[in-house]
Amino acid sequence: MRSAADKPIFTADLAGTCVFAIEGALAAILGGLDLMGVMALAFATALGGGIIRDLLIGAAPPQAIRDWRYAAIAFVAGGVTFAFTAAVQRIPAPVLIGLDAAGLALFAVAGTEKALAYGIQPLIAVLMGMITGVGGGTVRDILLARIPAVLRVDIYATAALAGAAVIVLGRHLRWPVRETAIAGGAVCFLLRVVSVWQHWQLPTAGGPHP
Amino acid sequence: MRSAADKPIFTADLAGTCVFAIEGALAAILGGLDLMGVMALAFATALGGGIIRDLLIGAAPPQAIRDWRYAAIAFVAGGVTFAFTAAVQRIPAPVLIGLDAAGLALFAVAGTEKALAYGIQPLIAVLMGMITGVGGGTVRDILLARIPAVLRVDIYATAALAGAAVIVLGRHLRWPVRETAIAGGAVCFLLRVVSVWQHWQLPTAGGPHP
Amino acid sequence: MRSAADKPIFTADLAGTCVFAIEGALAAILGGLDLMGVMALAFATALGGGIIRDLLIGAAPPQAIRDWRYAAIAFVAGGVTFAFTAAVQRIPAPVLIGLDAAGLALFAVAGTEKALAYGIQPLIAVLMGMITGVGGGTVRDILLARIPAVLRVDIYATAALAGAAVIVLGRHLRWPVRETAIAGGAVCFLLRVVSVWQHWQLPTAGGPHP
Repeated sequence: MRSAADKPIFTADLAGTCVFAIEGALAAILGGLDLMGVMALAFATALGGGIIRDLLIGAAPPQAIRDWRYAAIAFVAGGVTFAFTAAVQRIPAPVLIGLDAAGLALFAVAGTEKALAYGIQPLIAVLMGMITGVGGGTVRDILLARIPAVLRVDIYATAALAGAAVIVLGRHLRWPVRETAIAGGAVCFLLRVVSVWQHWQLPTAGGPHP
Repeated sequence: MRSAADKPIFTADLAGTCVFAIEGALAAILGGLDLMGVMALAFATALGGGIIRDLLIGAAPPQAIRDWRYAAIAFVAGGVTFAFTAAVQRIPAPVLIGLDAAGLALFAVAGTEKALAYGIQPLIAVLMGMITGVGGGTVRDILLARIPAVLRVDIYATAALAGAAVIVLGRHLRWPVRETAIAGGAVCFLLRVVSVWQHWQLPTAGGPHP
Repeated sequence: MRSAADKPIFTADLAGTCVFAIEGALAAILGGLDLMGVMALAFATALGGGIIRDLLIGAAPPQAIRDWRYAAIAFVAGGVTFAFTAAVQRIPAPVLIGLDAAGLALFAVAGTEKALAYGIQPLIAVLMGMITGVGGGTVRDILLARIPAVLRVDIYATAALAGAAVIVLGRHLRWPVRETAIAGGAVCFLLRVVSVWQHWQLPTAGGPHP
């Protein structure tokens, strides 16, 4: 499904994979996992969302299994994070948050577009875009025996959802494809970054929780 | 695979989806999750079992991905539960248990029949029926970082298993399809309801657990 | 994909399934699960790795769903372990470790070969071999709400990885198939057994873990 014209997209895809892999590796290191755990969480965090999406839309084997370069990028990023943990941990939080938001935006947009290309209905395509963005972090948290952060705190999945919804809306209104992708990615990125800056949270259900 | 004659089945299917989604949303609210977590657990609890079954029997994309109405029902049920938590929590336990047992029976019967329709062997078709019934609750508990209740307590998966076994037996003995489905559903429903009423539990292995 | 000539392989495959099922059942019993939990963990531990591999390489329905004998073996092994827990627990640790290492070697080799047969690229085929070996134990630990042991301690996934790499290397260098399989299995088995004997561990990232 890829051609020469997809090269910028492919490059961006690998960049997003790299950022998510670093985050997965850091979470594994903080959780006290060994080298195998670090590599596994780098892989799962970076590629879990896309793999789940591909299985759900009927695109087996998933792209990350079909093309070894995704796994290679994840392992290199995981290995570098393992070898230079102290240096990676010195990356300022705003930089990591910005890179992560960019990766989230990219995955949400690309995931939604792939679902639509496979004939998935609009509501579900939005879901697939969101899962592409947040699925990896969810698998990471499950492997760390934690309740996935995305279900508890922050405007994160919501940002992916908003970006994905822009893509589906744009397709419905016949907006130009490239501009729609940029708009969707910008909505996701900005919503995520502003929500961190402003400490926005989703509501929880009122009343005491027994 | 659906025709006009399937309309009652489809309606029942959506009803079961609705009940399971409410239960997933309530579990998320009690676990302190935010709105995104409530919607995610409504979706996963209601549709996780069917999605796992469809992936395993080779029916990708799963029905819940193919037809947006399943997700829509789950989200509406999740949203209503979130908005009116106190009211939903006032539903008497026997009503919820009865509705849940009905949903379990329906999912177990429908899941077994779908597996058989896809040429799955009898023993595995029984398993697929059980997974359709209990898979959603299992995914819900994993997302809440808990040992799935279905593995620890209650006659729940066992009831689904019994109902599914009736379907496979009936198919083997060439019983009429509709009556077999009703018998299988009744076995599952009654076994579940009576086991709650009588506090039946499965055995655990004897001796001390270090 | 199987022929009469595959009979020894099939027998070995069922033997590995049996060993892993016993281990899953024991973990369930130690975790206090009921009979349903014991059977579920026997199934998941024995067959989870192969099922994940088959879904990822596009071989749906997975072999363990297609052929009921795998599930039957897992359930028989789980049931025997449940009924004779004390006797199974008296199996000396070295015997269990040796049998487990043999099962791991067999699954890693067979998983890698199946991935290659499905046209999966070498790096990913090695991953698929490893996942075949360790996926079941990972699913078991997730169902027990624990961080998978394979991510934290021991030379276990690493042994599977080494065995799988031998298979891919041998295929690349056109070694004879049977001898390559034996060499890969031996590497996995010996690395696992020696690492237990010598208390080898993978490194963790340096520095304190906040």
